[in-house]
Amino acid sequence: MDRPHLRVAVVGAGFVGRALVEMLSDPERQIALDDAATATLEIVGVGVRDVERSRPGVPRHLLTDKVLDLVSRDDVDIVVELMGGVDLAKSVAEIALGRGASLVTANKALMALCGTELARLANDHGADLMYEASVGGAIPIIRALRSSLAGERISRVIGIVNGTTNFVLSEMSERGLDYDTALSQAQALGYAEADPRADVEGFDAAAKVQILASLAIGTALEGQEISREGISSLRVVDVEFARRAGYVIKALGVIERVGEHGLSRRTHPALVPLDHPLASVHGAMNAVFVEGDKSGPLMWLGRGAGGEATATAVLGDLLHAARNRVAGRHDLPFTVDDRLYPVDEGDVSSVFYISLDVLDEPGVLAEVAGVFSRHDVSIQSMEQSGFAHEARLSFVTHLARTRDVTATLADLNDLTSVDRVGACIRVVDGGTA
Amino acid sequence: MDRPHLRVAVVGAGFVGRALVEMLSDPERQIALDDAATATLEIVGVGVRDVERSRPGVPRHLLTDKVLDLVSRDDVDIVVELMGGVDLAKSVAEIALGRGASLVTANKALMALCGTELARLANDHGADLMYEASVGGAIPIIRALRSSLAGERISRVIGIVNGTTNFVLSEMSERGLDYDTALSQAQALGYAEADPRADVEGFDAAAKVQILASLAIGTALEGQEISREGISSLRVVDVEFARRAGYVIKALGVIERVGEHGLSRRTHPALVPLDHPLASVHGAMNAVFVEGDKSGPLMWLGRGAGGEATATAVLGDLLHAARNRVAGRHDLPFTVDDRLYPVDEGDVSSVFYISLDVLDEPGVLAEVAGVFSRHDVSIQSMEQSGFAHEARLSFVTHLARTRDVTATLADLNDLTSVDRVGACIRVVDGGTA
Repeated sequence: MDRPHLRVAVVGAGFVGRALVEMLSDPERQIALDDAATATLEIVGVGVRDVERSRPGVPRHLLTDKVLDLVSRDDVDIVVELMGGVDLAKSVAEIALGRGASLVTANKALMALCGTELARLANDHGADLMYEASVGGAIPIIRALRSSLAGERISRVIGIVNGTTNFVLSEMSERGLDYDTALSQAQALGYAEADPRADVEGFDAAAKVQILASLAIGTALEGQEISREGISSLRVVDVEFARRAGYVIKALGVIERVGEHGLSRRTHPALVPLDHPLASVHGAMNAVFVEGDKSGPLMWLGRGAGGEATATAVLGDLLHAARNRVAGRHDLPFTVDDRLYPVDEGDVSSVFYISLDVLDEPGVLAEVAGVFSRHDVSIQSMEQSGFAHEARLSFVTHLARTRDVTATLADLNDLTSVDRVGACIRVVDGGTA
Repeated sequence: MDRPHLRVAVVGAGFVGRALVEMLSDPERQIALDDAATATLEIVGVGVRDVERSRPGVPRHLLTDKVLDLVSRDDVDIVVELMGGVDLAKSVAEIALGRGASLVTANKALMALCGTELARLANDHGADLMYEASVGGAIPIIRALRSSLAGERISRVIGIVNGTTNFVLSEMSERGLDYDTALSQAQALGYAEADPRADVEGFDAAAKVQILASLAIGTALEGQEISREGISSLRVVDVEFARRAGYVIKALGVIERVGEHGLSRRTHPALVPLDHPLASVHGAMNAVFVEGDKSGPLMWLGRGAGGEATATAVLGDLLHAARNRVAGRHDLPFTVDDRLYPVDEGDVSSVFYISLDVLDEPGVLAEVAGVFSRHDVSIQSMEQSGFAHEARLSFVTHLARTRDVTATLADLNDLTSVDRVGACIRVVDGGTA
């Protein structure tokens, strides 16, 4: 069959870029790729910062460090941006979309910061903007939210969207390691960076929450603060309590409708019931759990990172963009519901697990319970365990406003009988069936 | 905005049909639906067998029993077939597609029997054929396989695609019920039919395996026998053994590449490791687990049945078909790889769990072990438990050819020391991380 010919420029030749180039060059895949693209795809160049570095799998003659020249070429139909970072990537995106070329990107920082703006630019120029790989690696969650669930009202999205923290927490939970040891192990295995803050403090997850919120609920609240709690203060005792009580601790990104038009967007660790599908997401895997009004619970699971896994999501986008191009159309940009506003996170209610180290003296429990009660935080269950002159009190509350729990903790900290507040972690409610 | 106007005919007004009509008529959803369809959608008629029956949520004036007249109307752009069955449904599909209208269907029997034929018809007439709801209810697995994973080589698909059997097995596993009690309970709760054979004997799962095989691997082996084992002979002792050994028993539909172009398609119960994502699929939920060469493991989970959940999948298809129609294009039909052939299931290798009731006499174990060895079936682990003059031997094999295991069982049955073969169930290997 005489197929149209499309020219593709790839920017970035790290793990993902190299895996993509290899898949596109694999003779075993050619027929299937051409069928899926409804076109023959030609890589006309691979933009990199340093053309001298060895890039196994990428033919030397394709490499160029004239990145902006490459993506400005009139004959390039689709630009694939896999370099990361924001500044140069944004220029690449603007040049490509601005002249009507389609853009496929795996860049979560770019999409979190400039997604709506780029989507408008794409729409204005009849181009596609696709970013499946920016959230959840290989998991095809973006297209599902944009297309399959287009008619559904999503009430909540809970994602395990950071493989590093999920690996660290899995090691703590399954092997009893403390946080520092688990993190060192993640670093030794290449799951965590030498500077792990972007992962363990929730910045990475917050960017993905930003992207999912735009898509799943339709909001353009870019630049607005996302409430963020990391996992670095989690203790083995809390992980063990969770296990005894039927939970496992996971680092989550959450998007939740509050009332009709309020939106809570936050990242934090949480106790997840062991029979919840998210509880079975082990190691460096990612998952996105979606609650739709009519669909009920849905979950997607897969590898959240890794060159080849991420490259499959990029490839899916590239083939889709190619089909659109051949058909002379483009995907709908995401629509924004202007009525949505970010709620004050203090007003959001959750169930909380709270652990206190207290002096083992008469009257302490009554004193502590009085503080909870004064702030209208009602207790669902309590466990006490003693160590010499100290005791640990572990509470699970009923649904309580975050603001009231924060005030409770402040007052508890002021009690001389309370040595420290060891943990205050949200609890995901309910099962799914 | 002045949007194109598309006319929709719905055939069938059971739970799914009524839920769809209600969602399309919900004033709260109108703007979002029009945005997603890029058109205004009008339901011009709802075809039913009996117009006198009460159909809450469906305006009386839309009902008609002239089903073929309805779908033959020149002004109908999209036909939604939700009546089930094959004969009339096939006529509806052929009429609609034959005149270039797009068809959305939730009909697994129709798609399993005639999917390839209808896909060709759709393609010949520039129409869309969409069937997301035919497998896995609300789970958007079909579009994911067709679009997001278009460039990926899928090596294995394992689905929990029948909610009835998953509910029965969950009750057996989690509450210790025997098969008959669990089934009665499923019937009382409306999860199982009065005649449960289509579910418990694997016919329903086999139809879904057929559809997924076409899509995931690209085969048109319709009408070819799918190897099928039901769950009705499962005993509580086997469920308990599984639990002790770190497994849970699930009824699975499996599609597996064998060698380069062989394909195994089968339904059977299997022992699933507790840390496998499929193990956490409880009750009537469905899930599809996909292994891609580059993507690694992926899983989708959601409600496999229920009017509203299924209707969300139908709605996603309808909106997508509407967008295509407005843009004057249609989705690619699935492509068929003619080199694929169904393997002899006897040649397929699995790990097996085998349980034998034997006389508790000296020499029996040696005799039994001799039979395994004679057929080259090697044992990974063994457990013996005694009851009066009887004993139960439970084996887990290493990877063994199905044919060899079948021959082993036949010889074991001939031994006077073997009272009966209690179970022979495959074991899903490996984790996913």
